[in-house]
Amino acid sequence: MTQSRGYAAQSATTPLAPYQFQRRDPKGRDVVVEIMYCGVCHSDIHSARNEWKNAVYPMVPGHEIIGRVTAVGSEVTRFKVGELVGVGVIVDSCRSCPSCKAGEEQYCDNGATLTYGVTDRHGDITYGGYSNNIVVDEHFVLKVSEKLNPAAVAPLLCAGITTYSPLRHWKVGPGMKVGIVGLGGLGHMALKFAHSFGAHTVQFTTSESKIEDAKRLGADEVVISKDANAMKKQASSFDFILDTVSAPHDINALLQLLKRDATYAQVGLPDTPPTLFMGDLIFKRRNMSGSIIGGMAETQEMLDYCAEKGIVSEIEMTSIDKINEAFERVVKADVKYRFVIDMATLK
Amino acid sequence: MTQSRGYAAQSATTPLAPYQFQRRDPKGRDVVVEIMYCGVCHSDIHSARNEWKNAVYPMVPGHEIIGRVTAVGSEVTRFKVGELVGVGVIVDSCRSCPSCKAGEEQYCDNGATLTYGVTDRHGDITYGGYSNNIVVDEHFVLKVSEKLNPAAVAPLLCAGITTYSPLRHWKVGPGMKVGIVGLGGLGHMALKFAHSFGAHTVQFTTSESKIEDAKRLGADEVVISKDANAMKKQASSFDFILDTVSAPHDINALLQLLKRDATYAQVGLPDTPPTLFMGDLIFKRRNMSGSIIGGMAETQEMLDYCAEKGIVSEIEMTSIDKINEAFERVVKADVKYRFVIDMATLK
Repeated sequence: MTQSRGYAAQSATTPLAPYQFQRRDPKGRDVVVEIMYCGVCHSDIHSARNEWKNAVYPMVPGHEIIGRVTAVGSEVTRFKVGELVGVGVIVDSCRSCPSCKAGEEQYCDNGATLTYGVTDRHGDITYGGYSNNIVVDEHFVLKVSEKLNPAAVAPLLCAGITTYSPLRHWKVGPGMKVGIVGLGGLGHMALKFAHSFGAHTVQFTTSESKIEDAKRLGADEVVISKDANAMKKQASSFDFILDTVSAPHDINALLQLLKRDATYAQVGLPDTPPTLFMGDLIFKRRNMSGSIIGGMAETQEMLDYCAEKGIVSEIEMTSIDKINEAFERVVKADVKYRFVIDMATLK
Repeated sequence: MTQSRGYAAQSATTPLAPYQFQRRDPKGRDVVVEIMYCGVCHSDIHSARNEWKNAVYPMVPGHEIIGRVTAVGSEVTRFKVGELVGVGVIVDSCRSCPSCKAGEEQYCDNGATLTYGVTDRHGDITYGGYSNNIVVDEHFVLKVSEKLNPAAVAPLLCAGITTYSPLRHWKVGPGMKVGIVGLGGLGHMALKFAHSFGAHTVQFTTSESKIEDAKRLGADEVVISKDANAMKKQASSFDFILDTVSAPHDINALLQLLKRDATYAQVGLPDTPPTLFMGDLIFKRRNMSGSIIGGMAETQEMLDYCAEKGIVSEIEMTSIDKINEAFERVVKADVKYRFVIDMATLK
């Protein structure tokens, strides 16, 4: 077995603490990665605290992983020892269903294997990136350019692809007016991508204090969503809106800002199911949809695009012994815009 | 002025009763139609009873109108006296917004003019088809084939186009599995069209008594939507679902039957906004949408298609003096599948 150490939650109510565990010995197609950095995603907190009611303990969170290859199985063709790589939200899928065959492993009809907190196809519990190493089938390992700051690349593996994929799927580009709802870990990446793709980009936020930051990150306009008049001026004018907010908020008011036939995509999963005024859809044939992360090929495409364009996440570094404080600050939205753990601090 | 007579509601709580009124003298582009038949749409009841809180009285309902041209204005080019024609849900629109220019007058950005119960662009209140005649700009008049039973064509002007348009918009055809929710005035037309377009068509109903009828009307399968096991067998298998039910029902259970990237379109406007589990959309990138009637060109296309294929509505004839009983039976869903008023009974 591969000896590993990291930080784990032992229950929904205990703080994360040092934890020793084992991962499988690398099989033929496995890549062993020494973890350098891991982003802190709000999902890590929801999961560690069992807010989605499906937690398996001990839980080692973390699915925005950057590291270097330290060993490869005999059948590995795409990676060599020493290469800089990434691991994201999923580490396996059935590879035979229509979604997998279409390169949309995230929608695997038989269920993609999450990077932590589930039983994988080997029968083992998966442990995430708040740890010193990870063993992953090469199909689910991404190549990372040496050009960018690797710590700031880590959040691309979840926050990046979660926003890149829907913006590509709904063909955001020049000549389109695109709204981004929420300016947090996901939202700030959505803003950077929508701007980079050439769309006229409008940031929606409840907070006046974020106006300057939004403009710096690429917003052509910023709308304070609590301002009913400002909202009214935007009625029926958007080609696409990407909503990154999982806290309860008025989706109907935002739906009314879409043009006929335009799409509203939700990537933050609301804790409370929203009540939807169907007339907002029916009377303009608008679409309400959603999206999760992206397939492996698309995730690689996103990383390559970011390397080419110099796009990374805005991050604040933290050490693993401060992870519980970091969690508290994420819950309060007190981070610009993503914590990244320097895994060299794991003793 | 053009003298007219029909049946009107004088308030939300009074039954429909004989009413004399005036329509405008035909202008250059107007067509005067002597009404032969008018379908009874559930909207007529919602409107007459002010259930949508926007009623204008006296109200003459009716927007599934078939009749013959009795006069045309000097600029009318498309119609002659004696021709069989139809008038549907809208009688005017701004004609200059992007939706109108795209031939989607039903989504007119400045508001299409409904056939009854609103103030039109001449400043007059519109009165519908429960009457002996109507004056309509030729752009909003449809040509009707002499091949079909004109009484059974009447419901195509609302129930027909409301279901035809989304089935065409989402490109329903051979190789697709399509669900129709509800088997009433709208649902039975949706079923006929989806079957005619070559899709594998599945009728959802809460009523076992409708199974045989659904099969006769074109269903390849019938699923009783209260049967959780039967529903589970259909999980993630549909390319498109058209929901014609406006009464409260479990949309989330139906959303789970869509494949990845498939669309659920609502054409019945629910009185109570449904609560939507966004995960049903997000985890399969499904789309929730809606649609209203169709544009004038598409409505003509639908009527021509019906003439070619011999498609009409299933109707029960009634006389205008029985309209209040007909309303009661529609509310109880006690009609197969649309009442049509024989306007020759209007004395």
